Amino acid sequence: MTVEIISVGTEILMGNIVNTNAAFLSEQCVTLGLSCYNQQVVGDNHDRLADAFKLALSRADIVLVSGGLGPTEDDLTKETAAEVCGSKLVEHKPSMDALKAYFAKRNIPLTENNYKQAYMPEDGKVLENPNGTAPGVIIPYKAGSSAGGAGTAGGTAEKAAKKYIILMPGPPGEMKPMFLSSVRPFLKKRSPGTIYSVTVKETGIGESSAEELIKDLIDTQTNPTIATYAKTGEVHMRVSAMAENKAEARKLTAPVVKEIKKRFGKHVYTTDENVTLEEAVVKLLKKRGLTITFAESCTGGLLSGRVVGVPGVSDVYKTGFVTYSNKAKHKLLGVSKKTLKKFGAVSEECAYEMAFGAAKAAEADVAVAITGIAGPDGGTEEKPVGTVYIGCCINGEASVKRFNFSGNREKIRDNSVSAALRMLHSELA
Amino acid sequence: MTVEIISVGTEILMGNIVNTNAAFLSEQCVTLGLSCYNQQVVGDNHDRLADAFKLALSRADIVLVSGGLGPTEDDLTKETAAEVCGSKLVEHKPSMDALKAYFAKRNIPLTENNYKQAYMPEDGKVLENPNGTAPGVIIPYKAGSSAGGAGTAGGTAEKAAKKYIILMPGPPGEMKPMFLSSVRPFLKKRSPGTIYSVTVKETGIGESSAEELIKDLIDTQTNPTIATYAKTGEVHMRVSAMAENKAEARKLTAPVVKEIKKRFGKHVYTTDENVTLEEAVVKLLKKRGLTITFAESCTGGLLSGRVVGVPGVSDVYKTGFVTYSNKAKHKLLGVSKKTLKKFGAVSEECAYEMAFGAAKAAEADVAVAITGIAGPDGGTEEKPVGTVYIGCCINGEASVKRFNFSGNREKIRDNSVSAALRMLHSELA
Repeated sequence: MTVEIISVGTEILMGNIVNTNAAFLSEQCVTLGLSCYNQQVVGDNHDRLADAFKLALSRADIVLVSGGLGPTEDDLTKETAAEVCGSKLVEHKPSMDALKAYFAKRNIPLTENNYKQAYMPEDGKVLENPNGTAPGVIIPYKAGSSAGGAGTAGGTAEKAAKKYIILMPGPPGEMKPMFLSSVRPFLKKRSPGTIYSVTVKETGIGESSAEELIKDLIDTQTNPTIATYAKTGEVHMRVSAMAENKAEARKLTAPVVKEIKKRFGKHVYTTDENVTLEEAVVKLLKKRGLTITFAESCTGGLLSGRVVGVPGVSDVYKTGFVTYSNKAKHKLLGVSKKTLKKFGAVSEECAYEMAFGAAKAAEADVAVAITGIAGPDGGTEEKPVGTVYIGCCINGEASVKRFNFSGNREKIRDNSVSAALRMLHSELA
Repeated sequence: MTVEIISVGTEILMGNIVNTNAAFLSEQCVTLGLSCYNQQVVGDNHDRLADAFKLALSRADIVLVSGGLGPTEDDLTKETAAEVCGSKLVEHKPSMDALKAYFAKRNIPLTENNYKQAYMPEDGKVLENPNGTAPGVIIPYKAGSSAGGAGTAGGTAEKAAKKYIILMPGPPGEMKPMFLSSVRPFLKKRSPGTIYSVTVKETGIGESSAEELIKDLIDTQTNPTIATYAKTGEVHMRVSAMAENKAEARKLTAPVVKEIKKRFGKHVYTTDENVTLEEAVVKLLKKRGLTITFAESCTGGLLSGRVVGVPGVSDVYKTGFVTYSNKAKHKLLGVSKKTLKKFGAVSEECAYEMAFGAAKAAEADVAVAITGIAGPDGGTEEKPVGTVYIGCCINGEASVKRFNFSGNREKIRDNSVSAALRMLHSELA
């Protein structure tokens, strides 16, 4: 079964945003064993949208669309898709109720514009959107309606019903949960076999070294296949097998997963697709009965903020410190004035004292401290922009590592957070 | 003049990489005043590539292609583009010399495969690639060759020569410099004029209300045009005018920008494309000579982390607190045990005391406190998941607002950060 992905939005065509939706949907299709040969991006324009839908229906069975479901006049995706599929828009009571409740809850008046979001194709399957106002919808394509692609010409109604346009909202925070909860199960039922995937996530070995390490496995891959995905400070290796049923597919992946885990050793932090590095760290802390705290300078709370994203983190995390100035480092964490004067705030010594001091001040078993120069100013020859010290103190024993990151302020800070999590994981695992 | 962007590569179709090339090229086209209505992504497959090129030539004057110029058998972009344009590949001596020099310098043997990178369409304009082995090329499209799109049918050779396929390598580190040094000047000569844009950014008025507010301006837009972009808690309105030169274009945007600023009043926080809301807040703090601190519970440091992203923030921000547990709120911020017991940590009273306490503990003029229930657990009927209190204390005077956000943990936390910045801006402006 073939899928085509269409991203709708002038903001993509104008380069205002990067099309991460298409990457997410493509990756999802791969895991479902569905083929995707074409992607399109088109703006909020009736004729061009209609052409894009017709073209996609002529060469794919399922057309996955994101964007253009907003309340404004510009947003034409639903109207155009319904027209191409030969479907009429009618008021969808549950969506109208949800819309009214959404606005009532926020005490915002519902404008005339918003009502159109509750009109849905009459034969569509409406997909709830708990994260926004625009529901999604799965629209069956009727043969003989305006599309008339080669693949459907002369088809019976039954044959035609095998093609669908699936509409989802554009904001990734709304699209992704909707895809995972509603669209993925729909596609999974139509997948040619069962795909079973295991994602081995490692941290601490870069992408090209990681590929070298399993080059022989990748080169001989047929079923299962191995695909590598580089993330900030991590590499995810997805092992996917197709078989008649899950148990068979699982059997095919098992030896490959085992071999990869063996080669990467302690660098592997999970084989669960849904587990993030911070979740793995929180799990390790819980398992070992340890509490944690953070003392951040250049990252300013980003590390703490990321760890607090893990549900149930309150068992292990109680308090944290942003100590941006020298005074704050001294007052809150007890970093000595002598250290600050002699070695500076960006130094191995300061990172040690920050980690020790944070553990003490928060009465925590584990403390991670980050101090560095994120730029654009503040670099010296000895300590250029990108110099970051990360200290990690566990049960009174501390270690510090120096990193030299490149890139702009944002990249240096992101890399610092990622390196801190990596260090923590490696110390706790 | 119309441009279409085609990105070639199985790694994009599989979701292994995000298509940043298309975003870069789109934005470049906007600044050149070139229209782009369609983007395509296609894999390394002869027939599908040919179809993509023909389709693009039928609706655009310039087809910008990146990817598929490598030395392996998979890489078919150049061969297929030349075929579609009716051009023969011949050895290009300067490219062959450059290729040999590249390999000699690195002491790598040149394989048979690599030679094909030095074969170029006979009437193409070759573009040097100082950052890799694959040169780019501008290929004129000859009418009567295999494309035959509606826009070119029956055209004379001269008319047809107005259409081009431009090939560039896929890696962004090679594509971007090649575009800027060779392709951009080529396109600029063909640009109909100069585009000048001003982005008015507002916060506190939602997208649909914002559009209502300037509906008359949008509806009558021709030159300048107005486009709105919704961001978390913000709406950006880009006013773009085309004219013979920058001064003329600027003159056209000025009255429209003035009118939008008048209508949105204090909600406008900048008219500078590159300024973020947190930057505007830091600027206001500096202007008023105020220092700031943050006390975060459910956001766990995200607000602080975002503000520390602003270069030069050290003038106004010294220290911040993550107080996730009740004990931390009491110990670090002095929130009374009575308040925590009687009203709970997620309450108006607690937000007040957190803000006051943070200002005092950090010796800061301004303090923002966030306490809420981000979920997935912890909600009650009275205070469901998504209930967030934000307190803002300026020079000893505090105010607290209650918010009811929806969505998952991530979305509730992002919205909380955004609402806090909005509150801050409105209090300081």
